[in-house]
Amino acid sequence: MPRYKMILDLDTGIDDALALAYAVGHQDIDLIGIIASYGNNLTDVTAQNSLDLLDLLGASDVPVFYGARHSTTTDDFSVMPVSKTIHGKNGVGDVAVPKSSRQVDAQSGIDFLIEAAHQYQDELIYLPTGPLTNLALALEKDPAIAHLIGQTTLMGGALTVPGNVTPFTEANINQDPEAANTVFQQQEKLTMVGLDVTLRTLLTKKETAEWRALGNQKGQLYADIMDYYIDAYYNLDIDKRGAALHDPLAVAVAVQPDYIDTLPLNMKVTTDKVTGDYGRTIGDTEKLLDETTSKAAILVDQDRFVHDFQRMMLAVLA
Amino acid sequence: MPRYKMILDLDTGIDDALALAYAVGHQDIDLIGIIASYGNNLTDVTAQNSLDLLDLLGASDVPVFYGARHSTTTDDFSVMPVSKTIHGKNGVGDVAVPKSSRQVDAQSGIDFLIEAAHQYQDELIYLPTGPLTNLALALEKDPAIAHLIGQTTLMGGALTVPGNVTPFTEANINQDPEAANTVFQQQEKLTMVGLDVTLRTLLTKKETAEWRALGNQKGQLYADIMDYYIDAYYNLDIDKRGAALHDPLAVAVAVQPDYIDTLPLNMKVTTDKVTGDYGRTIGDTEKLLDETTSKAAILVDQDRFVHDFQRMMLAVLA
Repeated sequence: MPRYKMILDLDTGIDDALALAYAVGHQDIDLIGIIASYGNNLTDVTAQNSLDLLDLLGASDVPVFYGARHSTTTDDFSVMPVSKTIHGKNGVGDVAVPKSSRQVDAQSGIDFLIEAAHQYQDELIYLPTGPLTNLALALEKDPAIAHLIGQTTLMGGALTVPGNVTPFTEANINQDPEAANTVFQQQEKLTMVGLDVTLRTLLTKKETAEWRALGNQKGQLYADIMDYYIDAYYNLDIDKRGAALHDPLAVAVAVQPDYIDTLPLNMKVTTDKVTGDYGRTIGDTEKLLDETTSKAAILVDQDRFVHDFQRMMLAVLA
Repeated sequence: MPRYKMILDLDTGIDDALALAYAVGHQDIDLIGIIASYGNNLTDVTAQNSLDLLDLLGASDVPVFYGARHSTTTDDFSVMPVSKTIHGKNGVGDVAVPKSSRQVDAQSGIDFLIEAAHQYQDELIYLPTGPLTNLALALEKDPAIAHLIGQTTLMGGALTVPGNVTPFTEANINQDPEAANTVFQQQEKLTMVGLDVTLRTLLTKKETAEWRALGNQKGQLYADIMDYYIDAYYNLDIDKRGAALHDPLAVAVAVQPDYIDTLPLNMKVTTDKVTGDYGRTIGDTEKLLDETTSKAAILVDQDRFVHDFQRMMLAVLA
């Protein structure tokens, strides 16, 4: 009997594809739905990717909902060139995953999140791996979810290390700093899993070779997808040793918090475009002595996590 | 029998004056010398302030040495106007502390530090509360001190909160980011006590009224000095509730590390003037998976520290 209901808010995306597989495979997680976000690709593309991967993983019962198509401060969104370089033009390493025959659900992702917050409350984990636009929109529509959702664990931000878009800004936060600041100011029981820890969790082609060696379609396709990502990390000189397990780490620590050490800290996201640190996730000096509503992951037991992650992938892909 | 030999590298300075009193009073600290730094004031002024305060505190046996008069990248130094606003034109709240008849020692502070590192090794705590220029110069002259000094605990930097000079830069680091980066890259067993924790430790006029009520010259003068600082914090709207115990907190945690939680992290100081974050203390992504040689204070038991600090001051000033 799974201990948690989980909603993944994904901009699928290669490491999102790993997060999806991890959540599908974890015995403590009842994956009740996917919200599709813009980010690594357009919302239409990330929704289709999630449908395709869910079918590939034998999880065709998990519904997919559309989230926002652009940030709260823009009217449109186009994919950043670097996103295509890292995730492929189709978002999943230009690998041809068989198309799902399923449709995206008619309900909006925002409404699905709000309903689930009321229905499941403490049991619900909301886990965004892309921009925080959908949660900000949901908070605007129904502020009560700030304290209803049992746990919000987000992949994004950078507190004790530089960002990966600017020296201050991490890519997910960078998509919509205003929405992220709304979330950091309002959402309770918030855990930030940022570059501080995710850059320490590296997967290599040694592991993906084991996926491929399973000798089936799932293993083959996931290995091809992940190898694209590992190559991109190498070619862009992000890390020559392997590629970071950003999104699956967030899923893992949401249900097994002992993988990380956290710092209780009230944070804000800088939305001032003059100070030069637009989109920075940083402690809020005004709230240093207040009760904390959020925490940031600052250390990770990387060897244990990567080992357990690989065991999980081999089970899910088998 | 004191457990540690301590060298304070002070740019005295109001909170430096508190650090001095704390070190003089602590049973575990044998204060073997003060190095005078530029920073809150000119080196000549901070040296004289340290001599005067040592005499006031009945610690006339502690020698004072001249350190650097300017940063490693400049030929001159002038006091920043804001330093005068916070610390007074004379560095100690424009309070007239009786002049010491003692002289500054003829040996250079850099040589004194190098000699002490070789003589005392693990027993030595080096504690800079201003720019890191003197340690950088000592490292240049004798790189061996990087592993000889038992512990280097510095007041400076900001990791999880914004800086106090720019959004990225804390005042001590800002004086000489190049020297600070040398220290963060080379010095082993380094603990950064930055704004992350010091801004949480606030002293008020309630405590200074108790110093004044001791009815002697020491209590009167220290209360007058600290009230100037508390007023400056109020008038500049740094904190209306009280003034931060930056420098004495560093002294306290050097000998009682259980006041703080630390994050083991290899850090760097940004010295690139183009990226907009000159003088930022931040994790070094290149060294995220390496053995750590430094740690940053990220949480402090502020109520216990402020309580113990006040007890110490009442004893020292009595």
